[in-house]
Amino acid sequence: MVYLDNSATTAVCRDAVERMTRVMTEQYGNPSSLHTFGIDAQREVAQARGEVAALIGAKSEQVVFVSGGTEANNIAILGGAEARTRQSHTAVTTAIEHPSVSACFDRLEAQGWTVVRVQPESDGSISPEAIERVCTPETTLVSAMTVNNETGALLDIPAIVSRVRRKSPRALIHTDAVQAAGKIPLRAEKWGVDLLSVSSHKLHGPKGVGALYIRKGVRVLPRIFGGGQENGLRSGTEPVPAIAGFGAAAAAVPALAEQAQWYETLKACLLEELGSHPDVRFHMPAGGVPYIVNLSLVGFRSETVLHFLAQRGIFVSSGSACAKGKHSAVLTAMGLPSAEIDSSLRISFCRDNTNEEIRALCEVLREAVQTLQRRQVR
Amino acid sequence: MVYLDNSATTAVCRDAVERMTRVMTEQYGNPSSLHTFGIDAQREVAQARGEVAALIGAKSEQVVFVSGGTEANNIAILGGAEARTRQSHTAVTTAIEHPSVSACFDRLEAQGWTVVRVQPESDGSISPEAIERVCTPETTLVSAMTVNNETGALLDIPAIVSRVRRKSPRALIHTDAVQAAGKIPLRAEKWGVDLLSVSSHKLHGPKGVGALYIRKGVRVLPRIFGGGQENGLRSGTEPVPAIAGFGAAAAAVPALAEQAQWYETLKACLLEELGSHPDVRFHMPAGGVPYIVNLSLVGFRSETVLHFLAQRGIFVSSGSACAKGKHSAVLTAMGLPSAEIDSSLRISFCRDNTNEEIRALCEVLREAVQTLQRRQVR
Repeated sequence: MVYLDNSATTAVCRDAVERMTRVMTEQYGNPSSLHTFGIDAQREVAQARGEVAALIGAKSEQVVFVSGGTEANNIAILGGAEARTRQSHTAVTTAIEHPSVSACFDRLEAQGWTVVRVQPESDGSISPEAIERVCTPETTLVSAMTVNNETGALLDIPAIVSRVRRKSPRALIHTDAVQAAGKIPLRAEKWGVDLLSVSSHKLHGPKGVGALYIRKGVRVLPRIFGGGQENGLRSGTEPVPAIAGFGAAAAAVPALAEQAQWYETLKACLLEELGSHPDVRFHMPAGGVPYIVNLSLVGFRSETVLHFLAQRGIFVSSGSACAKGKHSAVLTAMGLPSAEIDSSLRISFCRDNTNEEIRALCEVLREAVQTLQRRQVR
Repeated sequence: MVYLDNSATTAVCRDAVERMTRVMTEQYGNPSSLHTFGIDAQREVAQARGEVAALIGAKSEQVVFVSGGTEANNIAILGGAEARTRQSHTAVTTAIEHPSVSACFDRLEAQGWTVVRVQPESDGSISPEAIERVCTPETTLVSAMTVNNETGALLDIPAIVSRVRRKSPRALIHTDAVQAAGKIPLRAEKWGVDLLSVSSHKLHGPKGVGALYIRKGVRVLPRIFGGGQENGLRSGTEPVPAIAGFGAAAAAVPALAEQAQWYETLKACLLEELGSHPDVRFHMPAGGVPYIVNLSLVGFRSETVLHFLAQRGIFVSSGSACAKGKHSAVLTAMGLPSAEIDSSLRISFCRDNTNEEIRALCEVLREAVQTLQRRQVR
């Protein structure tokens, strides 16, 4: 099996599985229980909180555990907006956000907010200037992702923060860093963002847990009510096994500089193999991350190629897994021709992928071109 | 170790741990991915959905996976209310609900709803008649738990449903069955409730997953927005390992009749040991479940006894784990004297507890009375 769909989800690493197994069989107490067995469970949560905090450049007390990246984004945007009903109802975001962000802005819009969505350049990139341009002194909420999940576009969050602070001093600034965590350096506190979302299962932790960084003094309101866990921001018994697995996965992230080098190697291999293929178009944002490659096999529908690959044990994605069959909003915003959107594939690496796997992918892609009937895709 | 705090949480059973390990290492695809590896993950979710449906007397398509019992209750009540803004803003619930239910009603009240909270009898029980009495043709939402988490009071949900339907034909009826699932028979469809909540970690599954039963045709609105998973009701990548573990735990639930007998045996043992102790008061609702026993060691603060027990490796609870140090709202609603509330302990069984463990608990409780200084608790 060649798994090249790591931006959809990743294999859970051994450290995470082992820690989860121990927690589930030995440290299964409820962190809210007052006895020592409950306190042991609290300690597991505290350790993981420290490990996740270290990964994202934050302090432990700034990390709130939630059920995943989607919930982190929902709390940031909807919980952030709800804490600011007395401010102007205007927000700025981008046209390339993940559905868990864009759906929240759709909802704010339905509630009467004015939402400006910054369009990407034709290569998928978005500059800090483009975001600054639409900000006003009245802007209350700004959300821009760190790394785009479909194209690998990398936004310059520190620059965005400083420009937004200048134009919109009262704005709450959020970044969805789900596709960045564990692969590029995150410095939540240093960057000066108010809120930053990450997800465990994109970095070899389990599904079902994520974290929201909240800068000290920043107020957001909860979306789920009950026992008051996570400082009242996220009620419900903490998913201790998943949290522990997330912590273990965060702690197991290898040196980012070496990872970056490895991704560059893999990407270079892919470009060498397919760069001159007449049917392949790469969609590569300037300065994008090297672990996400979006390309089109023009004339061949994504789903057809995807199945051709899957039958041979190779797994990639057609656009984002979360868009499930729908036309990619991101590629559409980039103004790509329909034929390229309909034939786009996303290849996303993890640290365990090899050059052999990339070459196997490329060989099957070339085979696909020869074997599959070219379809008229509009 | 003697773990008698199974209403707070339970050990994860072997079947669940094994299935989760397999899913995390072999079937780690994203169910939203279009390739076969994603479809395999979908299959894991589908299997678990069937297993949970079977446990609660529902069909697969009526089961929505969420992050836990708290979220299930939030979606049921807040999502149910939001889908009924055009109906009268009146609701009925009980004064003995879990915080994840009562906090939602507090919130509805803050939004202008009229909420009637039915008080329990002095033994903690609540009759269907008591609920019917406060229902009106205008009542829009009714939520009554199946089993109370602090006293073991068992509400007659089928009788409540038929009485409420008579008085309040347009009411949405929800029951929080978190403390019932896996221990007493649940028949969601047969009972006729609209919504029913369960949690995995109370029945030897992992923390971080629960399910909401939604009767066919019943409309509730989502609380978390994004990729549209779970039929649009709960966006976010499905926590496949936790869901798979929940399914395995549901499938591993032993025959309920035999379990009931075993709990009666354990309870009889406890009563035999402590029933005539001059310092012990039992708080036992008529017809309550046998796996939750609430008692007071009058004159001794709960926390003191709890720590005395914990030092000897015996774990019980002082009131509900979710109330964390606060005065129990349930015992207060029952009108218990402060001295009994301040000294109350909850002992909750699972199928693996033994008579020896119960006798060990009772011996240490007697020792506690002799050793600990009696405090003047008001």
